[in-house]
Amino acid sequence: MINFEIISQSTETRARTGRFETAHGVIETPVFMPVGTLGTVKALSPEELYQCGAQIILGNTYHLYLRPGCEVVAQFSGLHDFMHWDGPILTDSGGFQVFSLATLRKISEEGATFQSHIDGSSHLLTPEKSMEIQICLNSDIIMCLDQCIQYPASREETTEALALTSRWATRCRDFWQENAGAANALFGIVQGGMYEDLRKRSAEELVALDLPGYALGGLSVGEPPPIMYDMAEFTLPLLPDNRPKYIMGVGTPTDLVELVARGADMFDCVMPTRNARNGHLFTGSGKINISNARFKSDTGPIDANCACYTCRHYSRAYLRHLYMARELFAYRLNTIHNVHFYLDLMRRIREAIEQDRFDSFRKAFYFERQAD
Amino acid sequence: MINFEIISQSTETRARTGRFETAHGVIETPVFMPVGTLGTVKALSPEELYQCGAQIILGNTYHLYLRPGCEVVAQFSGLHDFMHWDGPILTDSGGFQVFSLATLRKISEEGATFQSHIDGSSHLLTPEKSMEIQICLNSDIIMCLDQCIQYPASREETTEALALTSRWATRCRDFWQENAGAANALFGIVQGGMYEDLRKRSAEELVALDLPGYALGGLSVGEPPPIMYDMAEFTLPLLPDNRPKYIMGVGTPTDLVELVARGADMFDCVMPTRNARNGHLFTGSGKINISNARFKSDTGPIDANCACYTCRHYSRAYLRHLYMARELFAYRLNTIHNVHFYLDLMRRIREAIEQDRFDSFRKAFYFERQAD
Repeated sequence: MINFEIISQSTETRARTGRFETAHGVIETPVFMPVGTLGTVKALSPEELYQCGAQIILGNTYHLYLRPGCEVVAQFSGLHDFMHWDGPILTDSGGFQVFSLATLRKISEEGATFQSHIDGSSHLLTPEKSMEIQICLNSDIIMCLDQCIQYPASREETTEALALTSRWATRCRDFWQENAGAANALFGIVQGGMYEDLRKRSAEELVALDLPGYALGGLSVGEPPPIMYDMAEFTLPLLPDNRPKYIMGVGTPTDLVELVARGADMFDCVMPTRNARNGHLFTGSGKINISNARFKSDTGPIDANCACYTCRHYSRAYLRHLYMARELFAYRLNTIHNVHFYLDLMRRIREAIEQDRFDSFRKAFYFERQAD
Repeated sequence: MINFEIISQSTETRARTGRFETAHGVIETPVFMPVGTLGTVKALSPEELYQCGAQIILGNTYHLYLRPGCEVVAQFSGLHDFMHWDGPILTDSGGFQVFSLATLRKISEEGATFQSHIDGSSHLLTPEKSMEIQICLNSDIIMCLDQCIQYPASREETTEALALTSRWATRCRDFWQENAGAANALFGIVQGGMYEDLRKRSAEELVALDLPGYALGGLSVGEPPPIMYDMAEFTLPLLPDNRPKYIMGVGTPTDLVELVARGADMFDCVMPTRNARNGHLFTGSGKINISNARFKSDTGPIDANCACYTCRHYSRAYLRHLYMARELFAYRLNTIHNVHFYLDLMRRIREAIEQDRFDSFRKAFYFERQAD
């Protein structure tokens, strides 16, 4: 079981720092988790992740279940050993990918039937099956199976989805209590779409299960950022303060700052890694597109203030050259930079909260920054 | 100018070890040079190359001329600074790629006109232009422009090509003497196809130019290995022993052993890197195809005797998983292993020569090995 402790609390906002212990090490919060879908954070080695400041990474249950399959990972002592990452790992439940990637999906009380996006094979993902897979992967943090919905969704659809999510969470909790090791902490996922009363109902039903941590699902699914911020601001205080609060699949650098201000402790998103592979690189003043012709002979680094491996050794001209030639090394160097940018932002956020100057940090952050 | 010195000489074969000094460091021979076509050895960082034992890498003049172009590299102090590799670099002349990649090529006394394989633009590569590009890249070893021919080629065609190669070499030498820095050593390329008397003529004409080093071109272009070995065995002794002798574009592990036995000092080939990207991995007992289903749950390393980063930390099961999913990290881990395999083979070859047991090394090498 993880042990979560609040270290400092901002006086002007709801931002806070904390630490929690997992079987694979201590995590300082607020934390951003790079996404390692298939047992690899695309293009990076575990050593590079550490150098970028990564404390915990995320694996995708849906993907790992289909490839390489639990029976393969079971030959190793979990996903950590399989992929040579000995820090903490969080796995999602698979529900979101069934919703976003699989075809012919059908939701019933029992679970979600779907066809693999790879070979069309049929599968049934139940709450118990999701637990079983995540326990086999030996994740430090495992997530309850939830029902994800489209945005916008009707009140009726949202109500039904959150009710099913609560019943599934109870089944997950039961299976987890009977089968998981002490090292696998179970988080519940609050649904309820963009309806405050439904978010409240979902939060209450999950909090009643007394789980080690809680997440907000169904955010950043197409709604405007102010709506997302409002919904997080409403929902986060409904979750117990002595538990880590995780906002799933979020977000831009601005989202991270705004949601930390509202009390969020954990984030994950493909933004830094996917943007890197598309040549979009984060800097203190906004994103640049490295393929832009103006970088052709630019001998400077991506960001003069950045201390990452890429910025210490390579120019914009070289990165543009590699990217235009679609060289494999381009994806690595770009990813190192973007992941470092996100993790360094979180480090600076934690430092600002600890020194109780988070609100001025937040203002300075926008002062130097254009839109993400 | 490089300073080449023979360190030891095998008594039973023509194998020898040597060292030569370049402006960017000392190279111990026999040496294998990983190919970094576009200013990057595909998927690897310079630090990884050093860890694999790389002493010198190769850049391709044709590719670098087209992308990013000399005017970009000129903003840096050469290719080394541009790509963050501060060891020695050899660049080829561009001739082979004009021959193998470009379209609408036409050879005249002046040079080779061709259309870019990227955008169809027209270019003229003269001996002087090849020198100019390679000097701009600030390569430690630059190569004379030569005329490459198909295999098999008629005696007439081969004779004409070697004669043009000699006239171009003279023009390269003249341009180099007037324009190159002391750090850019010029190597001549012996042609002559599979005709011993033509190889002899070509060697004599080039040796008369008294260049810092010599290469054999036009080998491993489709002829059976025994023919290549015979041709190298015939030609290498025609080159001065106090100069490094380089066999271009070769080869398999067996080729390296056989050609070292015949007196070759330097090699380059895309085999280790290209094979890696196709999932073909070298081991002491032969090549394996990592996509093979028998590796699905195999917890062992690629090669139990290998000390590379990949073998120290990753299983065949993980590598197969990454490769089947076409994950970027697969190409890196595979390339690290194959490059390490080649460079470790060269290290063991040098050690065997220095201890004057190269012939028994060679026998043991075949004893444990299947075909490449």
